[in-house]
Amino acid sequence: MSEDAISFAHQNADKALDELKSILRIPSVSTLPEHAADMEVAADWLLERLDRLGFEGRKINSGGPPVVYGEWLLAGADAPVVLVYGHYDVQPVDPLDLWVSDPFDPDVRGDDLFARGASDMKGQVVAHLMAIEALKETTGIPINIKYLFEGEEEIGSVHLPEFIRANEELLGCDFCLNIDTGVIGPETPSLTASIRGMAYFEMRLQGPSGDLHSGTYGGAVVNPANTLAALIGKMHDEQGRVTLPGFYDDVLPLSDDERSDLAGLPQTDEWWIAKSGAPSLAGEHGYTATERATARPTLDVNGLLSGFTGEGGKTVLPSKAMAKISARLVPVQDPSKTYDSLLAFMELEAPAGVTWEVDMLSGAIASIIDRDSPQAKAALEALETVWGVPATFKREGGSVPVVGMIEEMLGVKSLMLGFGLPDDNLHAPNEKFHMPNYHRGIDTFIHFTAALAA
Amino acid sequence: MSEDAISFAHQNADKALDELKSILRIPSVSTLPEHAADMEVAADWLLERLDRLGFEGRKINSGGPPVVYGEWLLAGADAPVVLVYGHYDVQPVDPLDLWVSDPFDPDVRGDDLFARGASDMKGQVVAHLMAIEALKETTGIPINIKYLFEGEEEIGSVHLPEFIRANEELLGCDFCLNIDTGVIGPETPSLTASIRGMAYFEMRLQGPSGDLHSGTYGGAVVNPANTLAALIGKMHDEQGRVTLPGFYDDVLPLSDDERSDLAGLPQTDEWWIAKSGAPSLAGEHGYTATERATARPTLDVNGLLSGFTGEGGKTVLPSKAMAKISARLVPVQDPSKTYDSLLAFMELEAPAGVTWEVDMLSGAIASIIDRDSPQAKAALEALETVWGVPATFKREGGSVPVVGMIEEMLGVKSLMLGFGLPDDNLHAPNEKFHMPNYHRGIDTFIHFTAALAA
Repeated sequence: MSEDAISFAHQNADKALDELKSILRIPSVSTLPEHAADMEVAADWLLERLDRLGFEGRKINSGGPPVVYGEWLLAGADAPVVLVYGHYDVQPVDPLDLWVSDPFDPDVRGDDLFARGASDMKGQVVAHLMAIEALKETTGIPINIKYLFEGEEEIGSVHLPEFIRANEELLGCDFCLNIDTGVIGPETPSLTASIRGMAYFEMRLQGPSGDLHSGTYGGAVVNPANTLAALIGKMHDEQGRVTLPGFYDDVLPLSDDERSDLAGLPQTDEWWIAKSGAPSLAGEHGYTATERATARPTLDVNGLLSGFTGEGGKTVLPSKAMAKISARLVPVQDPSKTYDSLLAFMELEAPAGVTWEVDMLSGAIASIIDRDSPQAKAALEALETVWGVPATFKREGGSVPVVGMIEEMLGVKSLMLGFGLPDDNLHAPNEKFHMPNYHRGIDTFIHFTAALAA
Repeated sequence: MSEDAISFAHQNADKALDELKSILRIPSVSTLPEHAADMEVAADWLLERLDRLGFEGRKINSGGPPVVYGEWLLAGADAPVVLVYGHYDVQPVDPLDLWVSDPFDPDVRGDDLFARGASDMKGQVVAHLMAIEALKETTGIPINIKYLFEGEEEIGSVHLPEFIRANEELLGCDFCLNIDTGVIGPETPSLTASIRGMAYFEMRLQGPSGDLHSGTYGGAVVNPANTLAALIGKMHDEQGRVTLPGFYDDVLPLSDDERSDLAGLPQTDEWWIAKSGAPSLAGEHGYTATERATARPTLDVNGLLSGFTGEGGKTVLPSKAMAKISARLVPVQDPSKTYDSLLAFMELEAPAGVTWEVDMLSGAIASIIDRDSPQAKAALEALETVWGVPATFKREGGSVPVVGMIEEMLGVKSLMLGFGLPDDNLHAPNEKFHMPNYHRGIDTFIHFTAALAA
């Protein structure tokens, strides 16, 4: 039954490109107050498309830019209800001078369309809308769909938890399709099998009551910058393992199947070196770089600040030292237990001569899908049908807090299916979307939707 | 022969206070371009006093604010030639709102005169000028004197090394009297027996070629912030000793006499805690806090910077991490050998996955006086005569680069004799000078000068 819809999509490929360009021209930068009106324009753009599809759509005030919600529940009680999650806000564009073309004037060069938000994630959103349109105009939409488009993903989904909690019934579904993701490479179809969670901390040490002269006092008192450094140094052992007490207690070991899947991905050491620009790789012993970055927990310093950091020298013995430290978590680690581990470490290791505080700034649970679920199988088959090659499971190193929110509040898993590429310059100048992936994405969403109804 | 001069000084105590207030009204802040004219005013003030004393004085352009040089060499070939070093520039005054009175309108409250530069070091400079005036007006000046007043001490004596090197003959002397120092307490006369040297470094680590997303890359690559912290942690062992290879090779051990002198000072642990506001003290095992801060070398972090340091969280895996690190050195450690030690440490310990650079930003040798020299004995006797109690040797934890310069370029030691107090708020709001110390300082300089001629 997908064939007619696929044909329709192919005949309307130019329109699909025009539609994408149309929404990309709206500078919906959520973090900048001067774009507040643009947030409304982008939300209205979505509303209009939902209306054309015959969906009941509305903007809902959640405290920030509106949530755009749209539903079509006429596929019958036997058909599944799928909640499709996306966001219509984008990152800021600075530094603007590094862009080759205007970030809000979409420009196709070769196979790529360059614009802010092309890959993250207006391209995914419009691909799904075009897939549903193709179904509607041909065989009909075979499943029940609820769209949830937020406008605050790039600023931490500030109001989303409250919104979901207040609208549990409205958002009720069989599962969530999160399309804010990608595939490994343009010719390597893949399905995101897991995402890592996160626990983000700020640690502050205080020694003397104020900054001191390092000549007059150096040696007599404990230097909080030296101490902070020594503590951070002790957070890993010689094998690159995290030493916080109990840190690994809830880590599910990687199965042989999972390791085999990851080993089959094109992410070799050379790939990681080329992508990161690092001189060489290292980390937890006994795991490949891909395993370390996607399926093993980490503890990274995100920021360090103490004392004098300007040009030249100042002989200050700093009174304070601060570190931002975050852990990436894997199933079934719990951010609050990781916080406990860090506090336990500090109780054990922080020396006399300094006082300390550790705050947890944010937390998100990791998530892993059931590889044998009907949705996962349908997604894999859709990818293989469109690409003509076997699709694999990949694991994502990043965190997608909305997945955890929906799992905790609505009690359903998210399937992550999207078509961005690792080199799409997300959050950076010259963001792009690979147009062959855009059109294959539309086809994949058509096949997947049809398969869900079967 | 000192008695007449002492009487003269006591009769002219009010004038001495007025003279000090007069120079303190000149805002000679060397680091601020808007005070360039004030530097000339302060230099002219000194020139006028030198002229009144019968000295041949002149301003010499050294590239920055002028050096004020004045000489009186009529005491005869048998009398010693003493080079008196001081500086007429002062620190900035911000934050101004923390000052109780205008920093450039000297205000006597109780026994203290409050003004920027009162203790550091216009008070010491005018005390010496008043002592020489008292001698001139009574018994005559019994020694040959060369004054060297610079205007750049608070900005690192930028042009002084070049000036000294270019004027070796002009500045030739038997020893240097450096009056930019102080005593332990108002009732505890002391002579500075040693100052520490310094080697100041900036260390930079680079991992990935640019900042990365800590979710996508965390675990795969080496994090330079974690690595910098771990390296700094390894720079001390569990006994608080510095682990840089060869760091202690040239450290002269403390003699029993020296330890006994330091143990007799009023700088107890409680004193250090009260002065620093630290919750407790710690450092190199086997030494008291006073020994650690004045007679043992240290390695302190002065600054740390990496990644994101603003409010909240940003999941960046930083590409760079930087530390400012300085060692305080004791005789006869050499700053350039300390640099070699740090480089050797980095060669040994820096892991693959990061590249690193270490620059030495500045260096100064430590200095220690011969406790049995005639000058040291004369100074101790002068202190005891004026205070009426035994004077002791103290060691200074800070560095006085000009002492090293003069030792290296002119081949003479500096005797450090001055009358500031540890709580005079140097470089801070509400700088003050203890007036009893000012007047006792004048008397001490009279006795000391007379004793040098004997």
